[in-house]
Amino acid sequence: METIPVGLVGVTGYTGMELARILAVHPILRLTRATSRAEAGKPLRSLYPFLQGFRAGDVGITEPDAADLAASCKLVFLAVPHGAAMDYAAELLTAGLSVVDLSADFRLADADVYASWYGLAHRHPDLLPDAVYGLPELYAPRIKKAKLVANPGCYPTSVILGLAPALSAGLIETDGIVADSKSGASGAGRKAAVGTLFCEVHDSFRAYNLGKHRHTPEIEQELGKLAGADITVSFNPHLLPIDRGILSTIYTRLVTPATLEEIHARYDNFYADKPWVRVLPLGKLPETRYVRGTMFCDIGLVLDPRTNRLIVVSAIDNLCRGASGQAVACANLMSGLPSDAGLHFAPMMP
Amino acid sequence: METIPVGLVGVTGYTGMELARILAVHPILRLTRATSRAEAGKPLRSLYPFLQGFRAGDVGITEPDAADLAASCKLVFLAVPHGAAMDYAAELLTAGLSVVDLSADFRLADADVYASWYGLAHRHPDLLPDAVYGLPELYAPRIKKAKLVANPGCYPTSVILGLAPALSAGLIETDGIVADSKSGASGAGRKAAVGTLFCEVHDSFRAYNLGKHRHTPEIEQELGKLAGADITVSFNPHLLPIDRGILSTIYTRLVTPATLEEIHARYDNFYADKPWVRVLPLGKLPETRYVRGTMFCDIGLVLDPRTNRLIVVSAIDNLCRGASGQAVACANLMSGLPSDAGLHFAPMMP
Amino acid sequence: METIPVGLVGVTGYTGMELARILAVHPILRLTRATSRAEAGKPLRSLYPFLQGFRAGDVGITEPDAADLAASCKLVFLAVPHGAAMDYAAELLTAGLSVVDLSADFRLADADVYASWYGLAHRHPDLLPDAVYGLPELYAPRIKKAKLVANPGCYPTSVILGLAPALSAGLIETDGIVADSKSGASGAGRKAAVGTLFCEVHDSFRAYNLGKHRHTPEIEQELGKLAGADITVSFNPHLLPIDRGILSTIYTRLVTPATLEEIHARYDNFYADKPWVRVLPLGKLPETRYVRGTMFCDIGLVLDPRTNRLIVVSAIDNLCRGASGQAVACANLMSGLPSDAGLHFAPMMP
Amino acid sequence: METIPVGLVGVTGYTGMELARILAVHPILRLTRATSRAEAGKPLRSLYPFLQGFRAGDVGITEPDAADLAASCKLVFLAVPHGAAMDYAAELLTAGLSVVDLSADFRLADADVYASWYGLAHRHPDLLPDAVYGLPELYAPRIKKAKLVANPGCYPTSVILGLAPALSAGLIETDGIVADSKSGASGAGRKAAVGTLFCEVHDSFRAYNLGKHRHTPEIEQELGKLAGADITVSFNPHLLPIDRGILSTIYTRLVTPATLEEIHARYDNFYADKPWVRVLPLGKLPETRYVRGTMFCDIGLVLDPRTNRLIVVSAIDNLCRGASGQAVACANLMSGLPSDAGLHFAPMMP
Repeated sequence: METIPVGLVGVTGYTGMELARILAVHPILRLTRATSRAEAGKPLRSLYPFLQGFRAGDVGITEPDAADLAASCKLVFLAVPHGAAMDYAAELLTAGLSVVDLSADFRLADADVYASWYGLAHRHPDLLPDAVYGLPELYAPRIKKAKLVANPGCYPTSVILGLAPALSAGLIETDGIVADSKSGASGAGRKAAVGTLFCEVHDSFRAYNLGKHRHTPEIEQELGKLAGADITVSFNPHLLPIDRGILSTIYTRLVTPATLEEIHARYDNFYADKPWVRVLPLGKLPETRYVRGTMFCDIGLVLDPRTNRLIVVSAIDNLCRGASGQAVACANLMSGLPSDAGLHFAPMMP
Repeated sequence: METIPVGLVGVTGYTGMELARILAVHPILRLTRATSRAEAGKPLRSLYPFLQGFRAGDVGITEPDAADLAASCKLVFLAVPHGAAMDYAAELLTAGLSVVDLSADFRLADADVYASWYGLAHRHPDLLPDAVYGLPELYAPRIKKAKLVANPGCYPTSVILGLAPALSAGLIETDGIVADSKSGASGAGRKAAVGTLFCEVHDSFRAYNLGKHRHTPEIEQELGKLAGADITVSFNPHLLPIDRGILSTIYTRLVTPATLEEIHARYDNFYADKPWVRVLPLGKLPETRYVRGTMFCDIGLVLDPRTNRLIVVSAIDNLCRGASGQAVACANLMSGLPSDAGLHFAPMMP
Repeated sequence: METIPVGLVGVTGYTGMELARILAVHPILRLTRATSRAEAGKPLRSLYPFLQGFRAGDVGITEPDAADLAASCKLVFLAVPHGAAMDYAAELLTAGLSVVDLSADFRLADADVYASWYGLAHRHPDLLPDAVYGLPELYAPRIKKAKLVANPGCYPTSVILGLAPALSAGLIETDGIVADSKSGASGAGRKAAVGTLFCEVHDSFRAYNLGKHRHTPEIEQELGKLAGADITVSFNPHLLPIDRGILSTIYTRLVTPATLEEIHARYDNFYADKPWVRVLPLGKLPETRYVRGTMFCDIGLVLDPRTNRLIVVSAIDNLCRGASGQAVACANLMSGLPSDAGLHFAPMMP
Repeated sequence: METIPVGLVGVTGYTGMELARILAVHPILRLTRATSRAEAGKPLRSLYPFLQGFRAGDVGITEPDAADLAASCKLVFLAVPHGAAMDYAAELLTAGLSVVDLSADFRLADADVYASWYGLAHRHPDLLPDAVYGLPELYAPRIKKAKLVANPGCYPTSVILGLAPALSAGLIETDGIVADSKSGASGAGRKAAVGTLFCEVHDSFRAYNLGKHRHTPEIEQELGKLAGADITVSFNPHLLPIDRGILSTIYTRLVTPATLEEIHARYDNFYADKPWVRVLPLGKLPETRYVRGTMFCDIGLVLDPRTNRLIVVSAIDNLCRGASGQAVACANLMSGLPSDAGLHFAPMMP
């Protein structure tokens, strides 16, 4: 099959690195451009020695340039910070390219909500109606036709997939949901900062941004659609001393009594033809290592009769499923490929 | 000041190891006996090379023997599994010794609750009324007079200290509390087991025993006393890839509106003369590293107006504050010493 | 292309786990049998939840049985301890199967050397002459024709590949070589043992078996062949608090003066058509993460004019390149496949 | 006993942090000034929340000012980079203060050697003759009388203590020594840098600066004095994914045959009255965890008859023994205190 040339704008962060890792062995999508103002002029393998010996490693890093990208690629991944991505997206769409934006710039349908949580006005609100939220289990048909995909956030991916079957079936109360999420340090980015130095993260654990993380409105938007009602969630992230992985423990209350078997069956059914979501057997709980380096979202279910709570535990790899792998899945769909092309990874164990 | 000879029954686990570490530099309590059936005959430094050069390292490991312990010690720490500890305690009390039991055998006032959660009948329920729960901030006066102290569990220490000011003041609803707790791997014990091998724990994260961990009734007993009402808690533990440390994120709802400043002031006041509990400044959250190797319990407070929740984050060192250090604090009190004798540790950073 | 059924004897260790991981996504070799006395009766995904959703995960674990393996497989991987492997190999060869033995039982050509280092007599010395040492860069033509391949040890793979170009060209003295090697904890195996518990390995580092590790004679045998002379090596292993990876720092002395550029060119040339060995650019040194989960052996070269030493640094993934991936490469060759079938892994970064 | 006021210039790095940790519980030396241009104006506990509740945490961070330091302190620790320390030292000595410099500025007796390895001319060579190398086991009598102590580097401490008994007795060849050293990440400093981010260090291992690390001339200077001859060492550092700890594996050759028992006895004798150096029993090897947070240097000895090599393994905590703890030991001696005042730490295990 013919290869499809793709570009990567912003290669120096962990999502850019992960895109490079995945595209290095993708059978169809071929990395043709990789941009970074800071690193322009080097081959990619110079920045990332782990790519020596891969064709992707030979790609020369360039300054981002829309005309050049349009001339050499069919689709571009944006792995730059929110705020910067929206202008690139507008420019590249105008140039005729398809765009998968890994930032938050096109995830929120409401520009006011964006402004309120991200502290800046959206400069391209006109693009929001056509941006598709890139969660394949929920939106694959729309992703296939999209020119602009807003790749979901890592935490939202874990929480939305964890609650979708229960909320869409009206099993749980829409009020009072608590998501206690824990993420590996790659989620904090690859910027030089004292707070994410090895000795500041290793052998420790901490909570941060309780109740005010920017992924909150994204979670609420999607859960609201699933429930058909406004939802306010208490979303609370924590930093794990691991490289990759998010585990969300989600506390809900049943609307009406149900057995764990019934709930489990509903989850199984909801994800019956969605092989990346693995609903674990009763009695089993997810571990981040079981999804390391993959597209899987593992879900475990616990019913606590003492407190009448359904506890949903979901685990993903924040870099692969929660960012770059999901972006490639969207690019696959936008390119007419099967969503899992080049994404058949077995978990890295141990 | 004259030294006080103490014994340690069960030296091979992490709580035994931590007791040895603390007693190695304690100015008054002197380790005189250390027992282990498996390791009897060796000096302690042979089992624990890190004790070479300390007087405690020269103590010879012996088989547990009540008469010998009674002849050589004034107080004994029991660092053996629940179920085994109760018989030792009975025998040693009869022999006239003071006992600090680090197991769960005397923590629950109600023998039926014990039987129901631990799956075995209590063989010495007559001792339960006189056993004192060894949390110094709440029970120091009673600990001073006790012959038998039930040293608190690690998770309960973090949750009870985190909620005591709020519950005793009636600030929060007694219903619907969720404690999402994360513990380092030393809490899983030092028994050879595949599940706690380095490669099974490192670079991963998992939940376990959701809604059914044995520390639940202990938490509910103590929170109930503080609230003056029965309390059912959703307590949910997780395993962190760190050596030491517990961080509990506790979700509550305010009974009546209050400002964060008011709540913070109440916490400050509650712990005003309890130097081991550090109520952090507004805006700061605990990290397990800040309490590593110490008796501190750090508490951070967050008020989430969107969900009307008070979120309490508490952090302790599970081995020191959550087990052996707390046991030494109780032994200090039982021996007429200041509670903090030999416990002036600065956190190990990094 | 038609699939080739293969069996795996001994599935519970890390090399068995890694074989399962690799075979789960191999396009031709299909895992058909997986044996373990302890776990027989379960599907493989029950032992290894990370395999849920893979065909390999549905394989039922059975007791090892030569007749059954012969009836259902063309080739068998032995992932059992040395001492046990030799009898399985003999039996399976007799039954007409091809065998890749991951243990040490057939690595040493001299049964006396085996007996001396492993402390037991070889029970099938007659098989030794036909066993091929499974290092593809050196022995691919012989591996293709072999019925019995002795898969190299992890440490030897890193040291032999690191020194092969220099020794075969007579660049370095054969006397006085020191290999200071460091391995991740998966190399210590998956047996329940206190010494490899998370809390005994994490945040620490230690040397072990200095000068007497059993991989020494294997290294000396192969280096001797390359040099055309007997070689005695000071081989000294250490335990790293990482899951995967070996880095060997190898200290040698030049026989005659040479520039680093000349030496580098010789390495480049030696491995010119061996894509798994990546000779790094001058000035770059290997890191275990750059080879994580892959077949790569990265080599860095340093010439120290102050001490007249050539220092070779080599890094591999001990489980993939140093064990199971290499075994699959051999199985590929023995099956008429390209050596790299199913082994196109990009390094897991971070 | 009366307290002695001390100052700390440069509080934001790991050696400054470790000094703060140690001084927080020191019975005599009292931290009175802590300086940092970047953090001036805050209390120390604001920079280091782990110090909340300690008197040292209440010290206000100030801009460095010699007059203020001279008015408020008797001794000052310099925890600033090399190059910057020399001017501070000169100024503070002139102001009458005693100085312990943790940088490299006064470690090398020869200003030309300094210039050659550090790439800058020494601006105060006149101070070099009176600077004492602060290794208590070798120089305690001179340290007691010194006004300026050059605190040893971390790697040199481990290598010099490891070889001192053998070299001073002429047991080993002075030619051909190789020191393969591995250090925890705190040795890389607390500066924001991509290369020491958690995700760049965790679960990986690498060599760096082979044959050209700046600690080389310091090692050679001190080993040369012990041997009474010029010594050239191949010193090669590596980066461990741990917070604290250095383990050096040192390869030497015996001058004349000797038994391991004889060598061990010589080491025991050499360090007979030096309690911080623990010569381990025959057959035992050091582990960095056994010295974590302490002043110990553990030494293990291996004699390899196959290669005629004496292998010395030494382990220290790079921050405590290898930097700030050693600086406090020197300050103790300079202040007329026992060298171990405030340094009675038991190793943090696990």
